[in-house]
Amino acid sequence: MKADAPIFRWPVRVYWEDTDAGGIVYYANYLKFFERARTEWLRSLGLAQAELAAQAGLVFVVAEVHLRYAAPARLDDALQIQLRAQEFGAASLQVVQQAWLTDAQGAPGTLLCEATVRVGCVQSASLRPARIPADMRARINRWMTG
Amino acid sequence: MKADAPIFRWPVRVYWEDTDAGGIVYYANYLKFFERARTEWLRSLGLAQAELAAQAGLVFVVAEVHLRYAAPARLDDALQIQLRAQEFGAASLQVVQQAWLTDAQGAPGTLLCEATVRVGCVQSASLRPARIPADMRARINRWMTG
Amino acid sequence: MKADAPIFRWPVRVYWEDTDAGGIVYYANYLKFFERARTEWLRSLGLAQAELAAQAGLVFVVAEVHLRYAAPARLDDALQIQLRAQEFGAASLQVVQQAWLTDAQGAPGTLLCEATVRVGCVQSASLRPARIPADMRARINRWMTG
Amino acid sequence: MKADAPIFRWPVRVYWEDTDAGGIVYYANYLKFFERARTEWLRSLGLAQAELAAQAGLVFVVAEVHLRYAAPARLDDALQIQLRAQEFGAASLQVVQQAWLTDAQGAPGTLLCEATVRVGCVQSASLRPARIPADMRARINRWMTG
Repeated sequence: MKADAPIFRWPVRVYWEDTDAGGIVYYANYLKFFERARTEWLRSLGLAQAELAAQAGLVFVVAEVHLRYAAPARLDDALQIQLRAQEFGAASLQVVQQAWLTDAQGAPGTLLCEATVRVGCVQSASLRPARIPADMRARINRWMTG
Repeated sequence: MKADAPIFRWPVRVYWEDTDAGGIVYYANYLKFFERARTEWLRSLGLAQAELAAQAGLVFVVAEVHLRYAAPARLDDALQIQLRAQEFGAASLQVVQQAWLTDAQGAPGTLLCEATVRVGCVQSASLRPARIPADMRARINRWMTG
Repeated sequence: MKADAPIFRWPVRVYWEDTDAGGIVYYANYLKFFERARTEWLRSLGLAQAELAAQAGLVFVVAEVHLRYAAPARLDDALQIQLRAQEFGAASLQVVQQAWLTDAQGAPGTLLCEATVRVGCVQSASLRPARIPADMRARINRWMTG
Repeated sequence: MKADAPIFRWPVRVYWEDTDAGGIVYYANYLKFFERARTEWLRSLGLAQAELAAQAGLVFVVAEVHLRYAAPARLDDALQIQLRAQEFGAASLQVVQQAWLTDAQGAPGTLLCEATVRVGCVQSASLRPARIPADMRARINRWMTG
């Protein structure tokens, strides 16, 4: 991943539903935040997953995630989720995602959680690997190269 | 509902995932507990919902819920969910469900939450109302009359 | 509730996390959407719940909810959550909340779910009822009377 | 990890709440299943986390997770979660956890998801690393050595 790789940013607010009795965001919920950001990243490229499922019978499923938790987030915190594309194969995609606590100006301040996520394209009926459609590849490639 | 109506009981343990930063079970999660108990009640009558969906194309959807929260539950609490059938129509079913905190012997001690839940039987594709299959009606009726 | 009572509106997008195997939003998740909107409504009035908890030792807890489900929402749907204040007591508050499916222009089109929610103000340690602080009452009253 | 390391097993049933519109268990929810199994493993050793928090002011937080998804689980599936202790330090613990689909006899058949989870012991107020209490270390060591 080049230092100047494009970054997709998505804001997430911490609500009661996201926290646990330890007073912090429950560890599984970062996977929800990261999934929202991947969905919005695809949407920003003109790619709606509900359409992809209905029209091409394709779904993206997560094959592998490596999560490192650095600092806790709390109720009412405003987070910024960042996404960088890392590797891009015929039927899969690897992204790096980070959750940052933002400061009063909305700038990322403290790294909360970082994940490497490998996503595979599969047929929704059989869940067998499928090639990412050419148009989608083109859009992602265009975004990656700025 | 007769005082001696049969009661289905299902144990639920409170985990970190169920709590929020207030230190108590998040209010939406009682709906999860109640749904688990309805599913296990149907299963105890020999009715598996995944089968019902695959074979008859039918799903149960909740049409209305009235929830009253009486006392909070906390991490590690052992709950007992109770279910009584209240009304039983051609395409719908109304049940009363309660979440109780149990004591060390597993007996229900404190009422935590009570709900009246109306569930409709619908076609899974169109989500239009559908008659509850005769065999299912028979099994539920047999249970209700003890 | 007067027809011209002020309405607070909050957008919610449906993600994978919100849906279930029936292909629709899981019934408990509307309570999450409604809670987000209540939190953002209070925030819009200058009232942050994390501060309220830390400074005054007060939390809002839901005492009663009456939910009616009218139509299902699906993956990628853009919803608008609406909130109207209905009753306002010394230690409690009742609001009506609706989830609407929006059209391409973002206008509410189909009613998905409606809830009457009664919220009580309690001391966070004891969970005993507590008066809503005067400043908070004043802000909510000002909003209700437009 | 020795091949004959002791294994803790915990049953998990897949409910509607666990699934998504793809018809399979949502990827974040395996972290809930794994957390339930860790909690029950500690409970089986006489270690209740709510007590640990109240009496010693200590909480376990997840520092790192590596998740590999092998096959999907569906509504009504009966899973078995397995846990093996892998490394055991002064203030942290690493476990390997697997989710298996069980057959009609309840025996694990298909591997669904595997995770390596590193958990740290921290002070609940400051979230700073803390030594695992001696009694707890002794109980875990006893279990690990059979």
